Amino acid sequence: MASKVRLYVDHPLGEGQLVPLSREQAHYLFGVMRLVEGTVLSLINGRDGEWDAEVAQAGKRGGALGCLAQTKPLQMPPDLWLLFAPIRKERMSFLVEKATELGAARLMPVQTAYTNNGDRVRFEKLQAQVVEATEQCGGTYVPAMDAPEKLRQVLRDWPTDRPLYFCDEAALGSVAGFADVPTSNSAAILIGPEGGFSPEEREMLQALPFTHTISLGPRILRAETAAVAALTLWQQQRGDWRG
Amino acid sequence: MASKVRLYVDHPLGEGQLVPLSREQAHYLFGVMRLVEGTVLSLINGRDGEWDAEVAQAGKRGGALGCLAQTKPLQMPPDLWLLFAPIRKERMSFLVEKATELGAARLMPVQTAYTNNGDRVRFEKLQAQVVEATEQCGGTYVPAMDAPEKLRQVLRDWPTDRPLYFCDEAALGSVAGFADVPTSNSAAILIGPEGGFSPEEREMLQALPFTHTISLGPRILRAETAAVAALTLWQQQRGDWRG
Repeated sequence: MASKVRLYVDHPLGEGQLVPLSREQAHYLFGVMRLVEGTVLSLINGRDGEWDAEVAQAGKRGGALGCLAQTKPLQMPPDLWLLFAPIRKERMSFLVEKATELGAARLMPVQTAYTNNGDRVRFEKLQAQVVEATEQCGGTYVPAMDAPEKLRQVLRDWPTDRPLYFCDEAALGSVAGFADVPTSNSAAILIGPEGGFSPEEREMLQALPFTHTISLGPRILRAETAAVAALTLWQQQRGDWRG
Repeated sequence: MASKVRLYVDHPLGEGQLVPLSREQAHYLFGVMRLVEGTVLSLINGRDGEWDAEVAQAGKRGGALGCLAQTKPLQMPPDLWLLFAPIRKERMSFLVEKATELGAARLMPVQTAYTNNGDRVRFEKLQAQVVEATEQCGGTYVPAMDAPEKLRQVLRDWPTDRPLYFCDEAALGSVAGFADVPTSNSAAILIGPEGGFSPEEREMLQALPFTHTISLGPRILRAETAAVAALTLWQQQRGDWRG
């Protein structure tokens, strides 16, 4: 059950490349995971695919890894964005982790009318979670994490050839399949906050030419559940889960 | 944004029915939620649908609610079971909450070869989470939560006319749709532990006549993510999310 350590580094990866380690990385690899010189691990950097590397030098405060050979090319996820209103801490961590596993390419926190002001986006924390989820899920691409922006502003700047699917809590019922909408292979999914969208937001969203309402069954889903369900359905109908 | 309190009670619901409250329920309704005599709330008991009830008597250590009128009939979810190997605490809580929201009818913890012994199922806690998730998601049916059993035993006693979909981590790739398998409207989904199934378990599962392997895309999903994704796809293809 011991599996190879998989680590993200912000450094180019290539044959013969030496990758220096920060103090934190050295602590993790040698203190926590107990790797020794010569141990082989996997490296990703979000750009150069996945590489086998071996511990070239192990120290308490640093060290270095030597790249051996590429084990996977860079595999881009489909061009799917996830827009989400910040929710409470653990649920947002969960949402970000799951969106990474499910292959969202870009994560965009958006402030909506009913977004709780207490739900501040701790940006660095979320970015670290995206990286950790990428290490864990075997992906070679790290989803982009945007800084939070107002929903109204995001919609004003929207690339109109990209369909935006918005999950309307008020539209409980049958699911509009993503496959029903003629679309490019680009798409975006918008998940509202726990309190749903305001009447004004709903009206604005419905009036825009690039939005499509989808519904996720007869029960009320929490925001993070809706995100996972919508990403799953899109991947299966339009994305990289298709047979 | 203040929404009506929704409470599960283990008591018959019907017109004119008086529902006595336990000390904990009284504390929650009157101490935490600040309801007063005359306030209307929603009651469910998993059997009689959803009822409006009003606070008839509010005390520090107890009280009573009076049923007014039914607001929803009992809506059974589709006949879908979820078998899952116990995983770490927060992730298991999450899995159970999501399975309830997504309309699993029965939750069955199963011990597998790679189930961590430290991952003991805290049965009462999980049952409480199922009830809480039902209150939250607007459902009227509370999924049954079984006591943990060995996977081998569960499979030995299996009703062979119920297809069992098992998510095989080793079968990364395209998704076999649930709709491809000729099936009754009963089904079950089996999610393995973080370490996957053992080679013997995988062999045993593949040899059984009622099992079908499904795969959930090109990335490795955590157990609870796989559960949510598989439940979503089943509900959309075979269950109560169909248009």
